[in-house]
Amino acid sequence: MSHESNGSYYAVIFSSKRTDGDNGYNVMAEKMVQLANKQPGFIGVESVRDSSGVGITISYWESLEAISNWKQHQSHLVAQEKGKQDWYQNYNVKICKVEREYSF
Amino acid sequence: MSHESNGSYYAVIFSSKRTDGDNGYNVMAEKMVQLANKQPGFIGVESVRDSSGVGITISYWESLEAISNWKQHQSHLVAQEKGKQDWYQNYNVKICKVEREYSF
Repeated sequence: MSHESNGSYYAVIFSSKRTDGDNGYNVMAEKMVQLANKQPGFIGVESVRDSSGVGITISYWESLEAISNWKQHQSHLVAQEKGKQDWYQNYNVKICKVEREYSF
Repeated sequence: MSHESNGSYYAVIFSSKRTDGDNGYNVMAEKMVQLANKQPGFIGVESVRDSSGVGITISYWESLEAISNWKQHQSHLVAQEKGKQDWYQNYNVKICKVEREYSF
């Protein structure tokens, strides 16, 4: 996704490997995208997962504060806990400042 | 992938939608990964593409200069041109500074 504002913005890169089976993952993932959309400072999200269960999700935010608030959102905390228990073999999160971009 | 140095580093987020058919893409993609690995300042790469042709590739670099040098590498310029002509319906590139990260 592309951000039209001239201001700086941030990307949260979430790289993960899923466990086998759904175990309620897809319903929760959809719920979290809908909830993230309602948070102050949310810009957008893009997500790809291949058939082996490896995925990259990148969400975009207007500020580090918005990212921090979302990380601590009560429903998101529940999802994060379920993620560690049931859904992910491993994951890595990187918080990045977008310096510039271009498209084709 | 994770970077162990205490220094700052950069991520290049490449989001794309492939055209139908291979048209030499997979051979070139593998060649470009091998070539990127040999460039000064290259840290690593992660890439996911789903069955619909939507993909995210993120390469990690030690500096903006290293990213700029790779963008202008002669063999990479040829691949970029082929990308626009044959392999991608569209793509977006974002150059980001990694501020912090954590893993599970």
